[in-house]
Amino acid sequence: MTSIEKRVKKLGLVLPDPSTPGGNYSSCNSRGNLVSVAIQFPIKNEEYLYQGKLGADLDTEAGYQAMRLCGLNVLAQINKYFELEHIEGLNHVDIFYRSTDDWDDAPKVANGASDLFVEVLGEKGHHSRAIIGVHALPRQFSVGLAVTLTLRRRIPWIFA
Amino acid sequence: MTSIEKRVKKLGLVLPDPSTPGGNYSSCNSRGNLVSVAIQFPIKNEEYLYQGKLGADLDTEAGYQAMRLCGLNVLAQINKYFELEHIEGLNHVDIFYRSTDDWDDAPKVANGASDLFVEVLGEKGHHSRAIIGVHALPRQFSVGLAVTLTLRRRIPWIFA
Amino acid sequence: MTSIEKRVKKLGLVLPDPSTPGGNYSSCNSRGNLVSVAIQFPIKNEEYLYQGKLGADLDTEAGYQAMRLCGLNVLAQINKYFELEHIEGLNHVDIFYRSTDDWDDAPKVANGASDLFVEVLGEKGHHSRAIIGVHALPRQFSVGLAVTLTLRRRIPWIFA
Repeated sequence: MTSIEKRVKKLGLVLPDPSTPGGNYSSCNSRGNLVSVAIQFPIKNEEYLYQGKLGADLDTEAGYQAMRLCGLNVLAQINKYFELEHIEGLNHVDIFYRSTDDWDDAPKVANGASDLFVEVLGEKGHHSRAIIGVHALPRQFSVGLAVTLTLRRRIPWIFA
Repeated sequence: MTSIEKRVKKLGLVLPDPSTPGGNYSSCNSRGNLVSVAIQFPIKNEEYLYQGKLGADLDTEAGYQAMRLCGLNVLAQINKYFELEHIEGLNHVDIFYRSTDDWDDAPKVANGASDLFVEVLGEKGHHSRAIIGVHALPRQFSVGLAVTLTLRRRIPWIFA
Repeated sequence: MTSIEKRVKKLGLVLPDPSTPGGNYSSCNSRGNLVSVAIQFPIKNEEYLYQGKLGADLDTEAGYQAMRLCGLNVLAQINKYFELEHIEGLNHVDIFYRSTDDWDDAPKVANGASDLFVEVLGEKGHHSRAIIGVHALPRQFSVGLAVTLTLRRRIPWIFA
């Protein structure tokens, strides 16, 4: 069990199986000491969850849980290749959501990922973020999450 | 007065108060020598401005001013932690806007931020950019702006 | 002829003329060993192509070709300043698309860029990606593409 898994387990959480790419790309791509994690969706062990629009099909609390699940998938992707000790810290988080025109609780939903990262990674989990209300996401997902992070040192390129 | 403030003042501009994060994230996050600034909106000292849609509630000139204000907020965030001398240069700028279906002046509006960065930071202010017409932004803001930049040298992590 | 052009030619492809910026920004911006390429659209030697919405004006195959053309424009921008040998590898790719509400083939369209990068650059072409369905893009383009990449070593700043 890796140190990330230990931290996650200690918090009573479970990392989902990291999903395999649905196209010709890497889920987790390291170049030098910079790592980018491909957009993750609220998928739990291959099951698509939290599809629909915030404000219609999902309320704010469901959106928070959807973002948290995206965050767990990001951690699962990172955990596949790196130890907690390798990580210097998260850089930036892009949060994408689909909503009705009048729904306006995106920052609360975004905290689903932000809270998780700080809980699991501590200071290393702090990040800047952008919250973007999009027109569409694949498979009608309500939310999506892309993350960049920095490693303590340059490592050889890993195809993931 | 910092050197960024001096450059801003010399141009007859005023940096707004840097806004505090509306969630569990950092407005300005440094990892190694890379800094990411969280999405900034057209807020002036806590007052929400330039809400609505481009092409309906705001014309192109108002959009340009809205983007310029976002840019001033980015500079205010950077200025809180770094001196001009620390900055190697801006990397990339993500510009988000909300518009009616037929409005198509986004590059002009985007220049509101691009012009400001070059005016204030000179060569260091040059950047690549993406312009993205989104469905929604928090608080019905018309525009938003996220920026990455590089510092001259690696600095210890600052929580901001 | 640069080594990128040679690889492209060997595959029977032609790099379009790299477009000049439609605003006060750089099409290709290097800071340290990190390079960001501004959003590229399906433009071929100044001609605007693939305008409209996926699912209405363009089918999935046309979308794939549109993304491939965006990818060729990214390579054209990179090729203007760097040799293949300078490139350590792509980091991340942001794919933006416009579609009708019920069209859901974005990952296939995204592969238009992903496949190209792997064909031309090999391992260096691998990348993480985000696919984002947006409300609007300049000039009614159906797709857009922004890319970050890493160079083997720090190089002096190039204004491009």
